[in-house]
Amino acid sequence: MAKKPEIPKGTRDFSPEEVARRQYIISVMRGNFEKYGYQPIETPSFENSDTLLGKYGEEGDRLIFKILNSGNFFYDKTKLELPSDIDFLLGNPADRLSKENLIDLNRFTAKISEKALRYDLTVPFARYVVQHQNDIQFPFKRYQIQPVWRADRPQKGRFREFYQCDADVVGSDSLWQEVELVQLYDAVFSDLGLENTKIKINNRKILSGIADVIGAGDKLIDFTVALDKLDKIGIDGVKKEMTEKGIPESAIEKLSPLFSLSGDFGQQLEQLGQLLSESADGKKGIEELQFINTNIRMLGLSTSTLELDVTLARGLNYYTGAIFEVVADKVAMGSIGGGGRYDDLTGIFGLKNMSGVGISFGLDRIYIVLEELGLFPESVQNAPLALFLNYGNAEAEFSMQSVTKLRNRGFRVEMYPDAAKPAKQFTYAEKRGIPYVVSVGEQELIDGNLSVKLLATGEKFTVEADDIESFFAGFHTL
Amino acid sequence: MAKKPEIPKGTRDFSPEEVARRQYIISVMRGNFEKYGYQPIETPSFENSDTLLGKYGEEGDRLIFKILNSGNFFYDKTKLELPSDIDFLLGNPADRLSKENLIDLNRFTAKISEKALRYDLTVPFARYVVQHQNDIQFPFKRYQIQPVWRADRPQKGRFREFYQCDADVVGSDSLWQEVELVQLYDAVFSDLGLENTKIKINNRKILSGIADVIGAGDKLIDFTVALDKLDKIGIDGVKKEMTEKGIPESAIEKLSPLFSLSGDFGQQLEQLGQLLSESADGKKGIEELQFINTNIRMLGLSTSTLELDVTLARGLNYYTGAIFEVVADKVAMGSIGGGGRYDDLTGIFGLKNMSGVGISFGLDRIYIVLEELGLFPESVQNAPLALFLNYGNAEAEFSMQSVTKLRNRGFRVEMYPDAAKPAKQFTYAEKRGIPYVVSVGEQELIDGNLSVKLLATGEKFTVEADDIESFFAGFHTL
Repeated sequence: MAKKPEIPKGTRDFSPEEVARRQYIISVMRGNFEKYGYQPIETPSFENSDTLLGKYGEEGDRLIFKILNSGNFFYDKTKLELPSDIDFLLGNPADRLSKENLIDLNRFTAKISEKALRYDLTVPFARYVVQHQNDIQFPFKRYQIQPVWRADRPQKGRFREFYQCDADVVGSDSLWQEVELVQLYDAVFSDLGLENTKIKINNRKILSGIADVIGAGDKLIDFTVALDKLDKIGIDGVKKEMTEKGIPESAIEKLSPLFSLSGDFGQQLEQLGQLLSESADGKKGIEELQFINTNIRMLGLSTSTLELDVTLARGLNYYTGAIFEVVADKVAMGSIGGGGRYDDLTGIFGLKNMSGVGISFGLDRIYIVLEELGLFPESVQNAPLALFLNYGNAEAEFSMQSVTKLRNRGFRVEMYPDAAKPAKQFTYAEKRGIPYVVSVGEQELIDGNLSVKLLATGEKFTVEADDIESFFAGFHTL
Repeated sequence: MAKKPEIPKGTRDFSPEEVARRQYIISVMRGNFEKYGYQPIETPSFENSDTLLGKYGEEGDRLIFKILNSGNFFYDKTKLELPSDIDFLLGNPADRLSKENLIDLNRFTAKISEKALRYDLTVPFARYVVQHQNDIQFPFKRYQIQPVWRADRPQKGRFREFYQCDADVVGSDSLWQEVELVQLYDAVFSDLGLENTKIKINNRKILSGIADVIGAGDKLIDFTVALDKLDKIGIDGVKKEMTEKGIPESAIEKLSPLFSLSGDFGQQLEQLGQLLSESADGKKGIEELQFINTNIRMLGLSTSTLELDVTLARGLNYYTGAIFEVVADKVAMGSIGGGGRYDDLTGIFGLKNMSGVGISFGLDRIYIVLEELGLFPESVQNAPLALFLNYGNAEAEFSMQSVTKLRNRGFRVEMYPDAAKPAKQFTYAEKRGIPYVVSVGEQELIDGNLSVKLLATGEKFTVEADDIESFFAGFHTL
């Protein structure tokens, strides 16, 4: 096989450096999830197709990876009224497609595929809650860090396999959950050294309220989709798009105060309150945001800020209360987190009245932001502390005794496995970023010593083999 | 939807307790892998079909999960000479199968599926090494802990999705690697508290040597398959099976010493040496085992033992040197680990002369063994330290200040989100295994105190809110 092997488009191999950095982010998330009382679950990579299909809209269904049933497919020739073979199916169809003669074989798919790869973690979570409802203590705070798959067209920063990192609570409509989720975002990003992170918040009821007030309740989606673009197309662009969608001038005029909210979170809420004073939904939304804001101010955040963003509409289709989105400071990058409340999380699987609220962390984007800002701690790379060189069997036997002792003490050390040329062994140590090189030659073997060299400075030490643990313990705390 | 949702057969949901325990095992493995200088990589869940197919034999190919191409399938009606629709494909084929009329639609599969789920971690590792050979420092010691998928018939202890945990070195044929892998097995199982684990070792060259000596070189596979059953069917059973496979009586008689090897590892090797003195292969195998055994005796093992097992033949098709298998003491269970050396790991992808040696840990079986022996540390469950009860908003606000302070100090604490009936909140604490319950009532609110109750004993403490951190710090080290 002369061709170099490749991986499917939209997928990635992760090198040791990348895995270490991803694990670092995940461990910070996991540590905080657990500190906040969230418990881990894991669900299978594939679900029965009927668990997933129809849950993400038509576009979503199309993007779900389907798995072929295993076993053999056999069909009856006579009943098929096929020619003696099915070679026509095996040829290249592209050169004989003509529109009126097409048969849609998608109907066939349901017969040959009954399982599909997980598209997100929310639907499997809802399925889990319903299936295991008798074993769960509600409110159930769960976190889940697993890959998901989407047959999206791959492009920069968009992959067909990627991790989702979700924390959700189901079974309580207390707004304290929203307060805690803001704190949780702050805790994770602060621990990662990502300061001044903006946690933007809105409420579905505010959006409904605005739509009510301007008389565009029937055009809520069009209205919010346009509003959501404020950042990109400006006030005039938003107004233009609303006009195109058939929202009357007079209604659009009523929106003006939205674009000039000023002051702190509380003051902005007050101004919004005047605009929405006629809408029950709107007033409820403001009350909820007030509760969250007041308590966050009281409890304080480490390094993040909580900001009101009335244009925030992500996932409007299912969110019913709070809507969150997080953006990093100093790096131009989409959101690095998002979430919200959905009042009927498990209804799709027959368990009614289970309100849920959750947030998600965007692992890939957080990775890029930390990399750009140089925020990965050096210790994450975790190269071994020392490489013992290999000058032959007698030396190797002597070295391995020290290597074994050091490992038993918790040190990460290695011996080069072959008695290769010293230059090759040194290169290996350098390329792997191993700071110390230890060698045992004939003389050391006689004296029972080890020669230790710190590569960065060239400094050399002669250490008795019996003292090697305390030598390294002195340089490096475990 | 009235029907309770289900997951595909052969897959599993993992509860918080199970995830915590699995993570505990994985963290012990990961810690030791890194201590021994192994570096983590991750590969995509699915590979191009041609990367996987043909690598695991015909049976393996059948067990690989194939993924349907995304997008739509359209074919030309006229060319298909089909009736106006393809309903016949959509009906239930079972009731109209007759042998002579079957068409094998498997040939169709290659057209509609170009990707497949990973079947093991070894082939993706070989693919990774070849694809990234210019970025890798050889010898490359990598570990990989990821799920794999097999369309096997599910049964007790056999799943369609399960984790593999592999450590392999590629690019060195040094026997020090085998020595280290024995140490690594010992380190992991000792850290898990699994004492007296038997690490069984054999060598492919020993098996070839025996076959040579008894003149059954052309029946090596039949011969080793029979020998491998010694545990189950006894000496007579083995001899009977060999006879059935056409191995002559006289040859089988020569085997007798194999069944009565006695003494320690070194002594057994000596006896085996006499039997194999005529076989170059056999002598090489004995030399290799001697090197490994001598050095392991010199370096010592913590709690495991290394034992010679000349009947060990697992994976004979690809192993070329050492063969490992690990069994737990005190629990009747198949192997909890296995591995070996394969001289041409990356040859299938065009990179020749890359010897590899590796071991695998059986996560699911290790889990069962630890559970049966009660070896999971209690701390693994990791329930929150305290639940703050919720008696209403003013009390909750007061509580959340302590909750926030405690979390910032690293404590795992929670507040019940709703002002539910106290009994319900207490039940929640008990069911989740939370040891302390903290309550703030009207009087506490006035005094600035917290009432702390240790559920196990009923003991109660009144603690000033400002002192709550030191109160818990005194009880629990972080």
